[in-house]
Amino acid sequence: MPEEPAGGDLSRLRQLNAVAVLRESRGTQPLTLTELSKRTGLSRASTEDVARDLLGRGWLAEVAPTPGTVGRPARRYRFNSGAGRLLGVDVGGHKILALVTDLDGEVLHQARVEVPAEAGRRERLAAVDRCITKALTAAGGEGGGASIWATGVATTGLVDGTGKVMLSDSLPEWSGVDLGRQVRRLVPGAVRVENDCKLAALAETWRGVARYAKDVVFLLAGLRTGAGLIIDGKLHRGFANWSGEIGALPAAGWQQAPTHLHDWLSKHPTTGPDGFERVFVAARAGDQGAQRAVEEYVKDLAVGASALVLTLDPQLVVIGGGFSRSADVMVEPLRRELERWCLRTPEIRVSAFADEGVALGAVRMALDEVETAITDGLRP
Amino acid sequence: MPEEPAGGDLSRLRQLNAVAVLRESRGTQPLTLTELSKRTGLSRASTEDVARDLLGRGWLAEVAPTPGTVGRPARRYRFNSGAGRLLGVDVGGHKILALVTDLDGEVLHQARVEVPAEAGRRERLAAVDRCITKALTAAGGEGGGASIWATGVATTGLVDGTGKVMLSDSLPEWSGVDLGRQVRRLVPGAVRVENDCKLAALAETWRGVARYAKDVVFLLAGLRTGAGLIIDGKLHRGFANWSGEIGALPAAGWQQAPTHLHDWLSKHPTTGPDGFERVFVAARAGDQGAQRAVEEYVKDLAVGASALVLTLDPQLVVIGGGFSRSADVMVEPLRRELERWCLRTPEIRVSAFADEGVALGAVRMALDEVETAITDGLRP
Repeated sequence: MPEEPAGGDLSRLRQLNAVAVLRESRGTQPLTLTELSKRTGLSRASTEDVARDLLGRGWLAEVAPTPGTVGRPARRYRFNSGAGRLLGVDVGGHKILALVTDLDGEVLHQARVEVPAEAGRRERLAAVDRCITKALTAAGGEGGGASIWATGVATTGLVDGTGKVMLSDSLPEWSGVDLGRQVRRLVPGAVRVENDCKLAALAETWRGVARYAKDVVFLLAGLRTGAGLIIDGKLHRGFANWSGEIGALPAAGWQQAPTHLHDWLSKHPTTGPDGFERVFVAARAGDQGAQRAVEEYVKDLAVGASALVLTLDPQLVVIGGGFSRSADVMVEPLRRELERWCLRTPEIRVSAFADEGVALGAVRMALDEVETAITDGLRP
Repeated sequence: MPEEPAGGDLSRLRQLNAVAVLRESRGTQPLTLTELSKRTGLSRASTEDVARDLLGRGWLAEVAPTPGTVGRPARRYRFNSGAGRLLGVDVGGHKILALVTDLDGEVLHQARVEVPAEAGRRERLAAVDRCITKALTAAGGEGGGASIWATGVATTGLVDGTGKVMLSDSLPEWSGVDLGRQVRRLVPGAVRVENDCKLAALAETWRGVARYAKDVVFLLAGLRTGAGLIIDGKLHRGFANWSGEIGALPAAGWQQAPTHLHDWLSKHPTTGPDGFERVFVAARAGDQGAQRAVEEYVKDLAVGASALVLTLDPQLVVIGGGFSRSADVMVEPLRRELERWCLRTPEIRVSAFADEGVALGAVRMALDEVETAITDGLRP
């Protein structure tokens, strides 16, 4: 670590010291000033100085001494994850899901609002409003929104830096929606909107099955097919935030993939929701036509997946989305297809989230906003 | 910048200070101790201390004062790029090219040895030896090798971390060659071997047309088709160094692409080397059959290229390899095809290197080795 700059910017130095103390204090164990000083490499005096400031802001909390300690115990401190709240919202095809968490990302409250797939722009935006309001009310009555430091919003489609949906194939009337502005009406703090596949990938490396991996291809297999990429431990967005869109290429097979499931369904009509699930159920029960349909679906899925794997050589492929619940009939055929095309087949894992992965990824993005704001020395 | 650690490791601190001074002293202008102190944030005393050590090692050089300076001029220092040499070797299909450079990567000597495409392992390895020996002799007679601090070697095929070629489709008997061991016999210092497409990509961001871009797809279009990826300013290798191999997927079109050129050539036989060049020459001269062959070639090339672009959303695609010399008949059709498939078409540029790009990338990799070694405080 370089020594103290001769004529450096002291307020900048204080900020960085504060970030160092905050980072170290986010562990599971509360720390004494001596321990904080040792871990950050700051002098005892600087550590005390910074801790006083952070206590004043409410970002650091003093922890009660362990009962029974002999003599006068040293004061111990930890990051005050209760100082603020984060909001993560998944604007999906069939549901809106909103999570309110503390600053460690622990979920405190959640709200869910069902919405029909064919809902237009106005109906879906009203559902977004309802769901967020429900979550905020649960989090603290009328004033629940005031404690939100930052918000992440996930949506299908391509999103620009301001929170506008540039292009959405799967939802009616959704291209052009200014989702950022819509949500900013309801909460204070930064609001950032991002594509749902990208956020699902982020959630897997944060709290999911990809925690140990630095290069990950997340594959959304469901009513839509999509991808999110983690490269060198970071979400890869691309130059204009249009990464992961290999499905737009007909040769990648993803446009054709669900037609095999559609074809089987049209030959076996019954009523009931979630049609695709029926194909997997029938395949599992031994229906040969359904098994063939799943096989053909997987074959097409594997072409684009192989293109991603051959391009990036990831450590891990994570399968998420609605069909990942049918992993038992899908993953082994997919592995065989990947082995057929790829020079090196990576590990394949199935997402362990029910359907909260995307919303958790939105929380993680909100947390990134807070951490950046702290590093930049701004009160979030 | 955090302050000096209370009980930190001082030798580690000195190393980091030395790296800071070296980094600042690599600019175009020599600097005084006062300027070095200001730029590194180190105290005057520490700067003097570090500079003395680096002068002793020969890594820093004192620059003669500007004539006509009034009074006693302050001493000025700069990085001594002449303290050592780097070697970059391109083991290609038709040639071996070796570059000897200074520590700034300026080419001082080069040697080239032609080798037939059908040459087997032994013949090609002998040519590698001959080429390196020629370059080292030019660099300093019999003892020319002694000044080499690090060596980068480029080869077709997939390479492991020790410098062994794991798989090569294009060169006979080349899979399994221990190229690292071969080259280590001839030079001291670290020897690192890497795939040629990856190193060509590296060269473009270092000294080529991609200097300004952080996300780049390099496309090798020639007798072989291949790709190298720069992501977030760094060469993307992948988990097992197998990235960029989308050409292995038949659906990507690259295996089929050259057959269109072959077909035209087989219908228009003449003698002469470099057959493929003839198709482009004929297309440029207005031969409609040749134009169609180039068109079909580009169409197939564009499928895999679009898959890369849709996956990564790069700022820039660089076209290199033998066919890039026929950019006038190839780039516009390629742009049209990319526009057809991609959601956002990135900039397309043609490599400005003749055929030294890959060897320059090997030099850059050798320079990385030296910089890592300096950071790690080891004498390279």
